[in-house]
Amino acid sequence: MIRSIRILLTFATAPVLFSACGGSHSVETSNEERIMCEKLPMQSDGIVRLSKIQVNPDYLEEYMKYAVEVGTTSLETEPGVLTMYAVADKLNPCNITILETYASQEAYKSHIASQHFQKYKKGTIHMVDSLILDDVTPLNQNNIITNTIKR
Amino acid sequence: MIRSIRILLTFATAPVLFSACGGSHSVETSNEERIMCEKLPMQSDGIVRLSKIQVNPDYLEEYMKYAVEVGTTSLETEPGVLTMYAVADKLNPCNITILETYASQEAYKSHIASQHFQKYKKGTIHMVDSLILDDVTPLNQNNIITNTIKR
Repeated sequence: MIRSIRILLTFATAPVLFSACGGSHSVETSNEERIMCEKLPMQSDGIVRLSKIQVNPDYLEEYMKYAVEVGTTSLETEPGVLTMYAVADKLNPCNITILETYASQEAYKSHIASQHFQKYKKGTIHMVDSLILDDVTPLNQNNIITNTIKR
Repeated sequence: MIRSIRILLTFATAPVLFSACGGSHSVETSNEERIMCEKLPMQSDGIVRLSKIQVNPDYLEEYMKYAVEVGTTSLETEPGVLTMYAVADKLNPCNITILETYASQEAYKSHIASQHFQKYKKGTIHMVDSLILDDVTPLNQNNIITNTIKR
């Protein structure tokens, strides 16, 4: 529960409705509003991954919309999707890297079976020139990343 | 201040002593303790970077100790170091990637001038076969990463 507590308190200045999954909580704020599900703790079979995508330049703008949509929906609604942080190289914006963290193998299977991931996968498959999934190990297990969507 | 407020509230279940820099706050918790400085908000000249390091296999274990130490000290003491998240490829642990985020150019200059960074740089320069600094742009500016050290 540590991660989900952290998520809740991360939003303790915002009106938070943990409704997409998990329990429901609401906190007042002055200037922000978010909807975010509670997160599962990282399990021993969790996944930390750098997904490296080379996008066809002809489709880059369209691909970015799909990528932002699937990342936002996954973070907001999936308790087992702990990070989905996508960046584009400044020198070659067609080179996209996504830091993906799943709480467990089950969470990953649930993610790839989700409607929003399937929409992304089917909608972008012709836009992707190459995809490399590099599973990685954090050097420091006490180095904690919390990934949220600001609304 | 949003980032520093978020950091504070991220730790609202932990006894937090924001003493390394910034103000001092203490909050009760059941099971965790951390020391973390308050963070600066991301500025328009901030940096998001993927540093890609290939470590000489003969020095990998020693390099990892330096990398963990500089990451921990930077996150805990530098208000302008927003992320320092290092991962190693599972298939080739000599390939290290670090997600580095600096609140501004000034924060980056302060980081590379710091005693702990200089210790890391001078202590590991003979261990590093190659270093690539890929500056990147997050696809979604509302996708927020918070990076902390669990104690």
